[in-house]
Amino acid sequence: MQITEGLARFLVEHRPEDMPERVRHEAKRSLVNFFATALGGCRNEAVEILLAALADCFGSPHATVIGRGERTDALTAAFLNAVSSNVLDFDDTHLRTVIHPTAPVVPGLFALAERRPVTGAALLHAFILGVEVECRIGNALSPGHYRRGWHITATCGVLGAAAAAGKLLGLDARRMGWALGTAATQSSGLVENLGTMSKSVGVGNAARNGLAAALFAERGLSGPDQPLEGPRGLAAVMGDGADLAGATQGLGDTWELMQNAYKPYPCGVVLHPVIDACLELRPKVGEPQRIERISVKGHPLLRERADRPAVTAGREAQVSLQHSAAVAFLFGAAGVKEYSDACVNDPAVLALRRKVEAEDDATIPADAAIVAVRTATGEMLTAHVAHARGSLARPLSDRELEAKLRDLAAYGAPGVEVERVIEAIWAIERAESVEPLIAMTVPAAG
Amino acid sequence: MQITEGLARFLVEHRPEDMPERVRHEAKRSLVNFFATALGGCRNEAVEILLAALADCFGSPHATVIGRGERTDALTAAFLNAVSSNVLDFDDTHLRTVIHPTAPVVPGLFALAERRPVTGAALLHAFILGVEVECRIGNALSPGHYRRGWHITATCGVLGAAAAAGKLLGLDARRMGWALGTAATQSSGLVENLGTMSKSVGVGNAARNGLAAALFAERGLSGPDQPLEGPRGLAAVMGDGADLAGATQGLGDTWELMQNAYKPYPCGVVLHPVIDACLELRPKVGEPQRIERISVKGHPLLRERADRPAVTAGREAQVSLQHSAAVAFLFGAAGVKEYSDACVNDPAVLALRRKVEAEDDATIPADAAIVAVRTATGEMLTAHVAHARGSLARPLSDRELEAKLRDLAAYGAPGVEVERVIEAIWAIERAESVEPLIAMTVPAAG
Repeated sequence: MQITEGLARFLVEHRPEDMPERVRHEAKRSLVNFFATALGGCRNEAVEILLAALADCFGSPHATVIGRGERTDALTAAFLNAVSSNVLDFDDTHLRTVIHPTAPVVPGLFALAERRPVTGAALLHAFILGVEVECRIGNALSPGHYRRGWHITATCGVLGAAAAAGKLLGLDARRMGWALGTAATQSSGLVENLGTMSKSVGVGNAARNGLAAALFAERGLSGPDQPLEGPRGLAAVMGDGADLAGATQGLGDTWELMQNAYKPYPCGVVLHPVIDACLELRPKVGEPQRIERISVKGHPLLRERADRPAVTAGREAQVSLQHSAAVAFLFGAAGVKEYSDACVNDPAVLALRRKVEAEDDATIPADAAIVAVRTATGEMLTAHVAHARGSLARPLSDRELEAKLRDLAAYGAPGVEVERVIEAIWAIERAESVEPLIAMTVPAAG
Repeated sequence: MQITEGLARFLVEHRPEDMPERVRHEAKRSLVNFFATALGGCRNEAVEILLAALADCFGSPHATVIGRGERTDALTAAFLNAVSSNVLDFDDTHLRTVIHPTAPVVPGLFALAERRPVTGAALLHAFILGVEVECRIGNALSPGHYRRGWHITATCGVLGAAAAAGKLLGLDARRMGWALGTAATQSSGLVENLGTMSKSVGVGNAARNGLAAALFAERGLSGPDQPLEGPRGLAAVMGDGADLAGATQGLGDTWELMQNAYKPYPCGVVLHPVIDACLELRPKVGEPQRIERISVKGHPLLRERADRPAVTAGREAQVSLQHSAAVAFLFGAAGVKEYSDACVNDPAVLALRRKVEAEDDATIPADAAIVAVRTATGEMLTAHVAHARGSLARPLSDRELEAKLRDLAAYGAPGVEVERVIEAIWAIERAESVEPLIAMTVPAAG
């Protein structure tokens, strides 16, 4: 079984002209979502801390920190931009593995592109191939790997980042294998760290270290022949019943990026249909003061994960059905602002949270929900959402993704000319260079 | 079971004046060995590749690359110096776990000390505490962790590096716990990568990422409460029958550094008694041309690991008993030069290698050997080594460690004033600052 070699050959040999249009379009949608979340997250507390701690270590100013004024070396920019795009828990999700595929893979490509100009088409192609390797290895390791406690976005992300950067650097198959080997030996990230700022270090390292692995391989740093499938390689050591056999089957015929989904709300996926239903009911209810009771029915997973009536911090509120329902009715939105500490402690939100009750119904699928509102005048209003927005059955439209980018840029990086950014992403395949796009992400005043 | 908190409190509360003299002396011996191997390895091919690939990413020139002229930021210096000190496979070994304890822990301390001056005593104290945490966690994970395929020097090294740097930074217990948590989520390194240049990336990252974890924690980057013992923490995820209970028992009473051993020869430990015996016989034999047959008797492990009569590269020769015996008789030495590709292909070495035969004797312990030489005139000369030099039963003397530093500096960094370096290490506890010591490691012409 030659898994590493098979993946390396595929990466080296695949040609842009053989990439189906629908996959390239999905890649652009992933980029819209990436810039949305990176702009939204770029002034998050974790980013500020990491940036301040690393300021002494900034190398030659070749690369842009998205949404900000700083410039730094490619590795540090890859690290920081991966953190920004992941820190709000608002990034894309490869549902089969729960990998957030774009955050580790794309930052290294843009950082490289600022140092060695490449066409937008080449960058898009490398991005798709990187995600392919990342998610195929993720599939092979699932479900045992994540269940054991590995933060799969970080552990598989480093391989995707190395693959993508290796493609952009034009590595031959031997060096591509070395890049994957140096990525494998850097694979890390524990689920125990989720919910704390240290999660960001794992995701940032995946981007940084994958890019470094490709740069090292380019100069001849050797790796083992079978870093993935060898007796002391990644699958044996970090898997738990892993089956690598499928990792190279059908390469070039199926594309993992087509399984990518985008969150409309920065909170637990189980809450999404609840929020959809509340937003649907809101105009019918009128003034939120009229609400006497909000009754939520959902799959048992909903209450198991998110029955949190009393929350005091934004991070907790991201897994609170009571908070999510309350803000949807009060503000007609469930965005980053609605999951801030300030909003969580707003007396009006507090009051409405108390009126939310929830009930299990095992016949309701996990991406569905039923919400009923009883008004002070005794009226009963009900909404049934069969599939949440953002699920694969009901994906966000291109327009909705653009709106997400506008909202998040306004939140995290006001001053960025978002319409130009959006336009440049959709037009990326015609761009001689992607430098103008990345330059546009810096606010004028920054 | 509060393992992380227990270790963090110990790190924060332990005082230099409570550190026994013998432990402080062993720490100085480890430093002599560290500078020996770092000076010897600083121009190795892997170091040159990594340094060239990272040149764009050098931050503010606060820290010294040992044995060379370059200056870079603290994180990059920690990375490169850890690589240099480990790349020749000549570093120290904590025998119970096979961790090479110093390479990941010390480089971050010197890099920090160039940015924020500290006394030599404070650095030495932090070093000992870092090794203590590193090896205690290693003990808890052993033997399942290494057997599973984890390169334990890298995986536990990052925790030791974070602990030591956190101590030097004066972190409080909460932040020390965060530093250990951010280190845990970066723990990585596969045995599959040993024997290739990518091994160095794992060891370099351990030093770099441990230091980064401490710097991040200093600024408030939060981590989980139980990164080591939690349900998805390091022991559960990366262990294999790990038992953390002992990790906090007897803290401050026993010291893992006292189990540290130093290699006299840059090759497999099983070969060391063989080389000792050959060197003992050499003056009695006289001219090597007189040798007709060299007969080696040793524990079965010797032939299992090192029966390689036909070798063509230095890396192979490091596990060849035939090569090791031949160079010992020919050159009266088995140093870095004698394991170079050039020496391996020297016709005289080739000829003498053919005259070496080996035999198992299960009654001989692994750190012992018997070598017999038959001369052309029919004379039989025999040497029996009961314990190899460098074993815990027969440790290298301080003078032998000094000689190792002289030899390796001459090999890798000629121009360094080694006598001043040696003197400064022994006097480190009286130094107001360690900057002069690190400055001395740069060759005058560099």
